[in-house]
Amino acid sequence: MMNSLIDLRSDTVTRPTPAMLEAMFKAPVGDDVYEEDPTVRALEQEAAARFGLEAGLFCPSGTMTNQIAIKAHTEPLSEVVCEQNSHIYLWEVGGIAFNSGASVALLPGERGRLTAAQVEAAIRPVNVHYPTTSLISLENTHNRGGGSCYNLQELEAIAEVAQRHRIPLHLDGARIFNALVATGQQAADYGRIFDTISVCLSKGLGAPVGSVLLGSKAFIQKTKRIRKVLGGGMRQAGYLAAAGLYALEHNVARLADDHRRAQQVGATLALQAYVAEVLAVETNLVMFRLKPEMPAEQFLARLEEQGIKAASFGPQMIRFVTHLDINDEMITRLEKVLKSL
Amino acid sequence: MMNSLIDLRSDTVTRPTPAMLEAMFKAPVGDDVYEEDPTVRALEQEAAARFGLEAGLFCPSGTMTNQIAIKAHTEPLSEVVCEQNSHIYLWEVGGIAFNSGASVALLPGERGRLTAAQVEAAIRPVNVHYPTTSLISLENTHNRGGGSCYNLQELEAIAEVAQRHRIPLHLDGARIFNALVATGQQAADYGRIFDTISVCLSKGLGAPVGSVLLGSKAFIQKTKRIRKVLGGGMRQAGYLAAAGLYALEHNVARLADDHRRAQQVGATLALQAYVAEVLAVETNLVMFRLKPEMPAEQFLARLEEQGIKAASFGPQMIRFVTHLDINDEMITRLEKVLKSL
Amino acid sequence: MMNSLIDLRSDTVTRPTPAMLEAMFKAPVGDDVYEEDPTVRALEQEAAARFGLEAGLFCPSGTMTNQIAIKAHTEPLSEVVCEQNSHIYLWEVGGIAFNSGASVALLPGERGRLTAAQVEAAIRPVNVHYPTTSLISLENTHNRGGGSCYNLQELEAIAEVAQRHRIPLHLDGARIFNALVATGQQAADYGRIFDTISVCLSKGLGAPVGSVLLGSKAFIQKTKRIRKVLGGGMRQAGYLAAAGLYALEHNVARLADDHRRAQQVGATLALQAYVAEVLAVETNLVMFRLKPEMPAEQFLARLEEQGIKAASFGPQMIRFVTHLDINDEMITRLEKVLKSL
Amino acid sequence: MMNSLIDLRSDTVTRPTPAMLEAMFKAPVGDDVYEEDPTVRALEQEAAARFGLEAGLFCPSGTMTNQIAIKAHTEPLSEVVCEQNSHIYLWEVGGIAFNSGASVALLPGERGRLTAAQVEAAIRPVNVHYPTTSLISLENTHNRGGGSCYNLQELEAIAEVAQRHRIPLHLDGARIFNALVATGQQAADYGRIFDTISVCLSKGLGAPVGSVLLGSKAFIQKTKRIRKVLGGGMRQAGYLAAAGLYALEHNVARLADDHRRAQQVGATLALQAYVAEVLAVETNLVMFRLKPEMPAEQFLARLEEQGIKAASFGPQMIRFVTHLDINDEMITRLEKVLKSL
Repeated sequence: MMNSLIDLRSDTVTRPTPAMLEAMFKAPVGDDVYEEDPTVRALEQEAAARFGLEAGLFCPSGTMTNQIAIKAHTEPLSEVVCEQNSHIYLWEVGGIAFNSGASVALLPGERGRLTAAQVEAAIRPVNVHYPTTSLISLENTHNRGGGSCYNLQELEAIAEVAQRHRIPLHLDGARIFNALVATGQQAADYGRIFDTISVCLSKGLGAPVGSVLLGSKAFIQKTKRIRKVLGGGMRQAGYLAAAGLYALEHNVARLADDHRRAQQVGATLALQAYVAEVLAVETNLVMFRLKPEMPAEQFLARLEEQGIKAASFGPQMIRFVTHLDINDEMITRLEKVLKSL
Repeated sequence: MMNSLIDLRSDTVTRPTPAMLEAMFKAPVGDDVYEEDPTVRALEQEAAARFGLEAGLFCPSGTMTNQIAIKAHTEPLSEVVCEQNSHIYLWEVGGIAFNSGASVALLPGERGRLTAAQVEAAIRPVNVHYPTTSLISLENTHNRGGGSCYNLQELEAIAEVAQRHRIPLHLDGARIFNALVATGQQAADYGRIFDTISVCLSKGLGAPVGSVLLGSKAFIQKTKRIRKVLGGGMRQAGYLAAAGLYALEHNVARLADDHRRAQQVGATLALQAYVAEVLAVETNLVMFRLKPEMPAEQFLARLEEQGIKAASFGPQMIRFVTHLDINDEMITRLEKVLKSL
Repeated sequence: MMNSLIDLRSDTVTRPTPAMLEAMFKAPVGDDVYEEDPTVRALEQEAAARFGLEAGLFCPSGTMTNQIAIKAHTEPLSEVVCEQNSHIYLWEVGGIAFNSGASVALLPGERGRLTAAQVEAAIRPVNVHYPTTSLISLENTHNRGGGSCYNLQELEAIAEVAQRHRIPLHLDGARIFNALVATGQQAADYGRIFDTISVCLSKGLGAPVGSVLLGSKAFIQKTKRIRKVLGGGMRQAGYLAAAGLYALEHNVARLADDHRRAQQVGATLALQAYVAEVLAVETNLVMFRLKPEMPAEQFLARLEEQGIKAASFGPQMIRFVTHLDINDEMITRLEKVLKSL
Repeated sequence: MMNSLIDLRSDTVTRPTPAMLEAMFKAPVGDDVYEEDPTVRALEQEAAARFGLEAGLFCPSGTMTNQIAIKAHTEPLSEVVCEQNSHIYLWEVGGIAFNSGASVALLPGERGRLTAAQVEAAIRPVNVHYPTTSLISLENTHNRGGGSCYNLQELEAIAEVAQRHRIPLHLDGARIFNALVATGQQAADYGRIFDTISVCLSKGLGAPVGSVLLGSKAFIQKTKRIRKVLGGGMRQAGYLAAAGLYALEHNVARLADDHRRAQQVGATLALQAYVAEVLAVETNLVMFRLKPEMPAEQFLARLEEQGIKAASFGPQMIRFVTHLDINDEMITRLEKVLKSL
């Protein structure tokens, strides 16, 4: 039956709850290309206010908010410093080159986390052969790093490097609320540390569509033409924005449940003979490596037979993601299956 | 009061009717990045079927469907043949150059309509100094041309040129249903004549957000990575697609009412002393030129005092657009005001 | 025999005289990527000094100096105002889009000459749908316009528009010395009017390879990385620069001879029955339209039988170019042939 | 005095010998944009023939031949596999992104050498989030790797991977002749293994300016418009090409002398107390790391006092390059200075 499916592939697969749907339905809307959608405006302001930033720009995806930020911060013949497995480099179809004509300096992070020293060493000296370093971009929590979180001290050290070199600092905050809930850090700290932040509403927060890019008023003003040329200017987008507003109000604190469930699954996995290593579970992602005798493909096939879906990240790596549509009963079922393989 | 506003600026300003809203919120949805949203799939198939094309791609805007089509058809060092006031050149922020690195051959149309002879003369010969002509793009109805429609014979002649030179032919069909309703042409004729068609759902059809790009299966497959890199990959987009499906079923035939109202307003305008010229009204756009003694800015200000909004297209040109949210009573009020100026 | 060929296709076909060759091979050279070639430096300074500008950048072609200037002045999402038949748009392979990601506003000139009013009307207002006008580029003499020259008054009026809108003004001066010699204008006037100037050495001046881009010190500094990424950084380029220096000293005043010969040919052409129209000859280009009964292809074939080469610019247009390697005896032979057709 | 300078910064600093200069002077030339320069043609054919490839394209720099090859092989939304310190990524101003809009997969080589296994693992699977792998590019000798050479077996294994995945294989052969002379490999082997090869004439071969891109006839035909848009179309370029022809005939075998001298210097360096490590000298590059107590900047300053120039590659790395203008007497002087520090 339908409800037997346990979908751990991503926190993007969630469907709105009836309450969120009702909020969407009732939303006042207008033509947002004319900047006349009150719900979009409210979402942009609410998201910005949470992070202590001035303004926001609602977009149909986190890829778009990231790509717009990169385009607005950089110009051709410049370079973006980022982690070698970061989403902006690895999973946005080479968009840094495609949309911005910019090069990349790729750094190896510890579970995706860079240090200030690494970042500083990657800034290009002035030389006719080099692009100019125009942006430093971090990702928190780090997807490929298995939901790992930065501590504020390292972020502040990186921000100090960025400011000293007058290079803007962007955060891919696709799962920033997971980081905030897991660490107890404050959103306002991020607004202080980063020039711009991309916040996703359709992952752990459970909204169907959309991300918000946050920054100064001048920066957001500059991004509007970029959103337009990419085709992200929507008309009565308030229906989507309403879900985001609802999510900000109702679905943040409950991320702690996703984290608790992820840790429970991680602990179970660590005990299984076919598992070589489980990355310490920091948020809602459980990233683990299978032993050679259990290839990822075979593992996923056997889960699927039991109505469980997950994603592979290479021939032996698997990612489980907990989210709004995964409850304790499903975790119990999942653990039973994991123990039975 | 709210209902006193008569908004003639664009047919993009419409808000969903209760019936459309209900269709939206009952829609089954899924994660469309995983190609699992049944409503998005249904819309793409329905739109493709209407035009006799194989496949569709749902996007957040008509700018995105046009820009994706241009990118998929062209490569850098090539050139797009289009009308000098076409939307893809004039109102998409220079996206042909930005997204595709392609040049433009700009032709002067008669109210936006090109002839086969013009198009053929614009195709570049082989020469190391020239880009290669990689795409011919038409617009029907033509926005800047005041809602003008092509006749099928000219379109077929242009298609013959395109085929002979092995150059793909794209249609910006932002208002293609207006053209179909006004001329009695069949959607299937367009699928036969054009390689790809961009169909907008949020203009006369009244859906809140979205356009569909139509083409062959192979072409649409190719466009998915382009949509992704532009940030147009949405998750549970079925809510928006449901409005599009509803619009295709319920809001096409009624465009005749918009056209009738536009013609009525055009006739009234032609009698006013301050009007220099009214372009023959073919669909739902009324484009007219004011006499020098009535600057566009002043004209718009005086309408606005009466709760009427419209758009200027230069110092003397005005565009009125009729649409779903404009009824006969409003037209009566509008005419009264026009006569009083 | 070899010397019987009369090559009127372009002034780019000239070969160095023995004296120029000697200057080339005596030139002191160094590695110009390290900025250590004294002859390149001398050429850049001499060219800049002539026009009263601060600095120069030696490049392998006029296409490169133009494309570098456009790239340095613009950024993606912006637009270049230029004439619809200008070299930068028409004969540089769509490089404005390819190299700079910039759009074009194409204006119809009178023999390639724009007016200040035209230019001002093409500047985009602030609007999320429009690119930003970032550059105005003129061409003098205008190639496609048949070697036509601007008068200083119009140039000053255009410069006034550019300055008022804070938009830089570039000159494609591929044949600027022809304009100076023909009109008696001073190079320093151009340095005052234009922000940047591309000066070609391998056309009328007779050097084998190279152009110089002129501008402020800050601007030229910025262009060095652009030249590098395009692959224009050369090593011991002083051999080429020496020819340019020689040409600046010895081959400017003699352009008057080319102009005289061109006028003589133009006058002869005007008398021929097969000629529909000869554009007034202002410099070294003779542009004329053949009557329908004499297609360009046939005309060129008949000249070629007599050892004369020329170029067609469309099915009926022909361009003759006089230059260093065309002498009076050749003109006499040419006229005889023209009268015999 | 002038001849006291020992310039070990690069093999690009060489000046033509009198015999090379004479060959340049006497060269027959023509307008190469019209493909009429016989010396350019001869060089392109000679270079292609040496490597057993069909055709060649003469360009003003090795950056241009590399960038043109990358552009011709790739398209936007694709990715180039290369070594993380390769010249095309590190020293061409981010041109892969700028000129081609392509992303990079950066692999860590052993002294710049990749393995077939590394290359294969870097090829992207089909996924809407990934660019398509469109090119594999190697560098031999590898500059940043200190002049290291590939063995043919590894190259053949990489070519096998490339062919199996139908991905073209490019060689940045800026110093390919050094590799051939040092290993005894044949040029024809490279023409068999690689689809395209960039061969530099202005490094060890001693020509003042220029590189040749080699490939199939169809490929080279395609590159001509790319060279044009980058501004690399030169007119009477035969003077430069003549130097290249001379260099191919006279300056290849003598590279063995450069290698012998480099090894002698490397051996001396290895004995000095201030040297931490000397990379095994395979060709004409001597790359060595200084101990912390001798920073690169200080080391270079002390050499400069003695009339010796070299280049640093980071705070402790130094590169010496032997070449045509470095003779045994200079090596003796250099060694004396190195021992005295």
